[in-house]
Amino acid sequence: MTQRLTATASDFAAAFTALVNARREADADVSRDVAAIIAAVRANGDAAVADYTRRFDRFDPDTAGWTVPAAERRAALDGLSPDLRRALDLAAQRIAAYHAAQKPADSDSVDAAGVRLGARWRPVDAAGLYVPGGRAAYPSSLLMNAIPARVAGVARLAMVTPAPDGALNPLVLAAAEIASIDEIWRIGGAQAIAALAYGTARIAPVDVITGPGNAWVAEAKRQLFGVVGIDMVAGPSEIVVVADADNDPDWIAADLLSQAEHDPTSQSILFTDAAGFADAVAAAVERRLPTLATEATARASWQANGAIIVVERLIDAAPLVDRLAPEHLELAVADPAPLFDAVRHAGSIFLGRYTPEAVGDYVGGPNHVLPTGRRARFSSGLSVTDFMKRTSFLSCDSAALAAIGPAAVALAEAEGLPAHAASVAARLDG
Amino acid sequence: MTQRLTATASDFAAAFTALVNARREADADVSRDVAAIIAAVRANGDAAVADYTRRFDRFDPDTAGWTVPAAERRAALDGLSPDLRRALDLAAQRIAAYHAAQKPADSDSVDAAGVRLGARWRPVDAAGLYVPGGRAAYPSSLLMNAIPARVAGVARLAMVTPAPDGALNPLVLAAAEIASIDEIWRIGGAQAIAALAYGTARIAPVDVITGPGNAWVAEAKRQLFGVVGIDMVAGPSEIVVVADADNDPDWIAADLLSQAEHDPTSQSILFTDAAGFADAVAAAVERRLPTLATEATARASWQANGAIIVVERLIDAAPLVDRLAPEHLELAVADPAPLFDAVRHAGSIFLGRYTPEAVGDYVGGPNHVLPTGRRARFSSGLSVTDFMKRTSFLSCDSAALAAIGPAAVALAEAEGLPAHAASVAARLDG
Repeated sequence: MTQRLTATASDFAAAFTALVNARREADADVSRDVAAIIAAVRANGDAAVADYTRRFDRFDPDTAGWTVPAAERRAALDGLSPDLRRALDLAAQRIAAYHAAQKPADSDSVDAAGVRLGARWRPVDAAGLYVPGGRAAYPSSLLMNAIPARVAGVARLAMVTPAPDGALNPLVLAAAEIASIDEIWRIGGAQAIAALAYGTARIAPVDVITGPGNAWVAEAKRQLFGVVGIDMVAGPSEIVVVADADNDPDWIAADLLSQAEHDPTSQSILFTDAAGFADAVAAAVERRLPTLATEATARASWQANGAIIVVERLIDAAPLVDRLAPEHLELAVADPAPLFDAVRHAGSIFLGRYTPEAVGDYVGGPNHVLPTGRRARFSSGLSVTDFMKRTSFLSCDSAALAAIGPAAVALAEAEGLPAHAASVAARLDG
Repeated sequence: MTQRLTATASDFAAAFTALVNARREADADVSRDVAAIIAAVRANGDAAVADYTRRFDRFDPDTAGWTVPAAERRAALDGLSPDLRRALDLAAQRIAAYHAAQKPADSDSVDAAGVRLGARWRPVDAAGLYVPGGRAAYPSSLLMNAIPARVAGVARLAMVTPAPDGALNPLVLAAAEIASIDEIWRIGGAQAIAALAYGTARIAPVDVITGPGNAWVAEAKRQLFGVVGIDMVAGPSEIVVVADADNDPDWIAADLLSQAEHDPTSQSILFTDAAGFADAVAAAVERRLPTLATEATARASWQANGAIIVVERLIDAAPLVDRLAPEHLELAVADPAPLFDAVRHAGSIFLGRYTPEAVGDYVGGPNHVLPTGRRARFSSGLSVTDFMKRTSFLSCDSAALAAIGPAAVALAEAEGLPAHAASVAARLDG
C-alpha cells in the first residue's frame, strides 16, 4: 500500500524526513567497469568501441556500418503517420521557440573609471547526444536535447544510440531527422560516451555530452565531467501534485501514474487538504492501474515510493515541497499563485487544473530534462546555455589603469605575487 | 630553456599539437583516500572531521574552537593598512557591480496558443566556500567566490579554511568580514568539503560548494558533484599573450611571469609576429626572474611549460589560441578588435596594451575563477548563476490544452506511456 501521512500527526516530522531521505537511486557499483571501458577506448579507439558493441549489443559496426545512412533517416521520417508527424513538428517548433528566448545577451559597457568590461557568449563547437536504445528510446527526449543545442548555434551535433541486435527505433530516427542531427553512430553505453569525449579515428571529439542513459552511461558522464561538459547527474523521475478537493480524482490519479509508469524507482506524491479527496484519488489510482500496459511498473513505483500527504491548509505544503525539491510540481488548484510564490525549489512547475505534467513532457516548450533527487535545490533544467560558454573581457587605457591599477599592485604585493604587481606597476610608470 | 616555435616551420603542426596536449595536471591518485574521508565524515560527522583536522592540520577544533569569533574577524579588518583596506574595498565594490549586472531576468508570457510559460530564478539556500590555507590563501579569491553568492541573494555563506597549527591568514579574515561571510569554520581538506555537502551536527549542509583547493579538495568536490553543485574542475593557471613588436618587452615579460609565478605547472605562452621582439621578451624574462621573490616557481614554470611562438601575421594566432582555449588571453596590440572577434575559446580576454591580466585578478570586476586546461571550450567563469537555479513553468487553460494536448497524447501513445496520454486525454474530454 502507498504511504499515507497526515501533517497533524505526532510522528509526521520523522515520517516526512524519512520520505525525503529515502534513497531511490540504484547504488550499482559500476565505477570500476566504467573506468576500464573508458581507458580501453582512450587507448584503442574504434577497435575497443567495436569490441564492446559486439559484446553488449550483439551488433558489429565494422560489418553492419557505424552510422545510420541518410536514406534510412529520411525513410523513417517519411514513414510516420500524419498525426505523429504533426505532433513531432509541433513539439519541435514549441521547444525551439521557448529555447530561442533563453539565448543570453552579450554585455559591453564602459564604467565610471573608464574601464570597458563585459561578457560574450559563444556556442561550443560540437555536442554529443546520447539516446538510449530499447524501451526508453524516446523521440521527445531527442528533441529536448538536440533543439537547445541547435538554438545555441552548435555547428556539429553527433548522436550515439545503441542498436541492440542491429535494431533502431524508427521514431527516434525520424526525430533525429527533424532535429537535423549531423551524425548518428550506432554505438551506446560507456564506450560511446568515451568515444565522444576523447574522440577516435572515426569519431571527432565533442565538447559537451547530454542525454539520458543507464547506470553505465551516467557513470561514464560523471567520470568524464571536466574532460567535456555534461548536462547533469540524473536520477529517477518524480512528481509532486498539490491538489484541492475540487479536482476530478481521476485526473490527479492519472498525473501520479504518469511518473510512476516510467520506472519502479520513480516517485509520485500527492499533497491535499481533504482526507476524503485523498481516499478518492487512492481509489482512482487502483481503478486506473489495471487499464495500463505499464501496470506492473506503475504499481511497483506507486507502492514502494508513492505517498499521499494530508495537510491542514494547502499553503502548508510549500515548505514540505521545498524539502523534496521535486523535478515536477503540479499545482492543481483554482488559484495557484500563492503556492507558486511560496515554493522555492522545483525543476518545473505546472499551474492550474488543465496543465498535466505530461503536456510539458512533449509540447509545452520548456525542457523536460530536469534536476531529480532533490537537485532542484541547486540545479536547473537543460537550457541553451548548457551548449554555450561565456568569455568575460576587460579593457583599460592608461587613464583607467591609473584609476584602478594601484589597488591591484597593493593586493598583489600583500598576496606575495611580485610579478602580478610588476605587470601593473610597469604600466603605471610607463 | 623555454620552447620556441615558428609557425612556418615544417614541424610546427606536430610541435603545436604536442604543446596543446601536454598534460600539466598532476595525476595524484587520491580518489580512494578521498572516498574514505567522505564516507567517514558521512558516518561519524564532527568526530571524523575533528580527527582528520588533528591529524592533517595539527589543530584540535574541539579544544581550540571550530569557528573564528566575530571579534577576531573584526580585528583583522581593523588591522589592515589604509592602502590595503581601500584596495579590498575597491575590489569588492567593482566585483559586486560587475556581478550585479549578471543577475538573470525572469520570463513570463502567453504565446499564440494561449499557453502561459516562462522561467524564474531563485538563489540557493546556502553556499559553502573553500579557502585554502598557507601560501595560497588569497583574499582576492575569497571576494571572487563570496560576492557573486551575495549578489545572487544566498542567505547563508559558510566558509571553511584549514588552520595549520592554528594559524589563519589575517588578510583572508579581513576579506571575509568585508564579504559578510556568515560562518568561518577552521577546517579544511576533503573532510571540510564532505562536512559542507552532507552536514554534521555542528555544520548545516550547503547546496553549492565553490573555491580552489589542493588535489584532495578538488577530488572531494568532483566526487560530491550531484550531492551538491560545484563551481568547476580546476587545473593549473594559464596565460596566452598575443603581442606585436610595438610593446615594451619588459611589460610582456612581466605578464608572462605573472602566471608562471603561481605554480610550476602554470603555463605562459607568447604569440608574436616578430622574431626580434620574441628575443627581446625572452631576454626581459631572464632579466626580471632574479628580481622576483617567486623566482624558483616562475622559472620552473617558464622553462617547463612556457612557449614563444612566432606567427606570420598576428591574426594567424586566433585558430591556435582556440586550440589552447586558455584561461586568460591578453591581446597587447594597438587594435585588438580583429583578434577579439576571431577568437572563440578563452575564459577571459584582456584588451590592449594597458590591460595586464593581473588587474583582472583583483579589481577589474569580472570573475577571476575561470576554466583552465582547455575547458574554456565548453565552460565559463564563475558567475551569479552558479549560486542560483532556474524553475521553468507552464500553464494551460482548457482552450490552450485543446490546442496542444492532442499532440502530447499522440506522442505519449507512440512512446508507450499510456498514463502520460491519459493524464492529458482525460482533460480534453472533461
